[in-house]
Amino acid sequence: MSVLIVGSTALDSIKTPTAENPRLLGGSASHAAVAASFFSPVKLIGVVGDDFPREYISLYKRHKIDLSGLQMVPGKTFHWSGEYEVNMNNRRTLLTELGVFEKFTPHLPDAHKSAQFVLLANIAPALQHHVLDQMTKPKFVAADTMDLWLNIALDDLLRLLPRVDCFVLNDGEAHQLTKEDNLFVAMKKIHKLGPKYVIIKKGSHGSILSGPRGHFICPAYPLHDVCDPTGAGDSFVGGMMGYLATARGTIENNFRRAMVYGSVVASYCCEGFGLNRTTKVKRADIAKRVKELEKLTRF
Amino acid sequence: MSVLIVGSTALDSIKTPTAENPRLLGGSASHAAVAASFFSPVKLIGVVGDDFPREYISLYKRHKIDLSGLQMVPGKTFHWSGEYEVNMNNRRTLLTELGVFEKFTPHLPDAHKSAQFVLLANIAPALQHHVLDQMTKPKFVAADTMDLWLNIALDDLLRLLPRVDCFVLNDGEAHQLTKEDNLFVAMKKIHKLGPKYVIIKKGSHGSILSGPRGHFICPAYPLHDVCDPTGAGDSFVGGMMGYLATARGTIENNFRRAMVYGSVVASYCCEGFGLNRTTKVKRADIAKRVKELEKLTRF
Repeated sequence: MSVLIVGSTALDSIKTPTAENPRLLGGSASHAAVAASFFSPVKLIGVVGDDFPREYISLYKRHKIDLSGLQMVPGKTFHWSGEYEVNMNNRRTLLTELGVFEKFTPHLPDAHKSAQFVLLANIAPALQHHVLDQMTKPKFVAADTMDLWLNIALDDLLRLLPRVDCFVLNDGEAHQLTKEDNLFVAMKKIHKLGPKYVIIKKGSHGSILSGPRGHFICPAYPLHDVCDPTGAGDSFVGGMMGYLATARGTIENNFRRAMVYGSVVASYCCEGFGLNRTTKVKRADIAKRVKELEKLTRF
Repeated sequence: MSVLIVGSTALDSIKTPTAENPRLLGGSASHAAVAASFFSPVKLIGVVGDDFPREYISLYKRHKIDLSGLQMVPGKTFHWSGEYEVNMNNRRTLLTELGVFEKFTPHLPDAHKSAQFVLLANIAPALQHHVLDQMTKPKFVAADTMDLWLNIALDDLLRLLPRVDCFVLNDGEAHQLTKEDNLFVAMKKIHKLGPKYVIIKKGSHGSILSGPRGHFICPAYPLHDVCDPTGAGDSFVGGMMGYLATARGTIENNFRRAMVYGSVVASYCCEGFGLNRTTKVKRADIAKRVKELEKLTRF
């Protein structure tokens, strides 16, 4: 089955201590869509301006991403610019130009409305609602978010949580949302807000799941060289949803492996600027790292 | 086989946001010895003053810890006092009274000199050297440390590393020692300083091993209530060494399970003040959490 993905489609200008890369293909939906495309067909919902490079359209197409829900309108594509510190953990935003994103209203082509797997990648919660409102009866909905929405759109987000099966956020956001330092207590509190599956991402420390079958401690793949972590979280959840959409058997049975596959795609994402490394990955490379992670965690 | 453990034997006064506990049994050697005692006989090397509570001697004895290397001298027992912040991650030292520890020189009873498994728990590197100098030919030596020694006794520590098989430190210390942010690169650098096994502890994120068979990602047991993390790292390495000393088969074959057993003892340590919880644990409780960790990480 295919995955419907809504989120930001952007141009990212990224500065690290060693390099600077302007106007890379970025945005939560781009990262998630490419990640999911290794496992399942993807339908992308987003908006770009008339300055959007043609090569990025070709990139989406090479990954067989259905672009019938991607709006192309006059104006500038959403542009984000950020800088990482030496340790690659802290980043600061240098610039945010919303461009055509400011007036974006996602419209679903009719053929998209019956999609069974939906990923509401990081975007304003109001737009995540708007996508769900247009759908008939999805089988599994996952939502990601960011600190910004906890700050300026908390009510929308809290109304969204009962509508999703899985909510994904990072440790800092979990603390911000629940005021809890203990992540396991935080997950309990988030379940009470609606989602059956809660995933907390911890960057290089991996992620943890709280779900119907209890907890799962999902490892991160050991990286000796982190080039650019932008989009790693989106790649994680995108890869996970792509895997879930096509794996045989129940969602519950496949969930842990889906997270590990997502974790591996995220590891590739970190090894290059933007999508540079991810787009060069083969399905066999992913399978190899999954096998390695199995060995790295067995005792 | 038994484990010889040298380290601090102290009285800890610990303050957390919710409670205050004066003069608990503490010190790296106390925590490590009790942890190791679940798996193997322990020979303790340390010093206490004449104010050392008799009940703590009884506690050691209940854990069948050999005290013939524990010096009891006139004066005050080493006393440490610290306070944890709300998130239980940051702590600050309120008071350090070295007492009889100031002039401590570890003397090994003859029967101890041929011990095969040696844990140089956190203590001045000069004293760790002094213990090794008295030994005939130990089979496996592990050393722990703390930021203080990296600051004031780095040369002693660097001379120690080629003498140990396994070096254990936390992520902050690994960064301090190697100036590396990436833990996997840091471990590579530490191997070059001598040890065949390098373990980096990451608190609630577990620990990672770099050894002859590559890496191992060791999970931390999920805790919903961390009461007092003092001594968790010592419990981890103590439990690990106790397990290694008695497990059948080669050290390499047993190493991962040993870390997991250590991780579980550390989880119990965090659930009570000082050694309050650890001393109530049964071997079967430990086995149960090890089984749970197996399930929590399988995919």
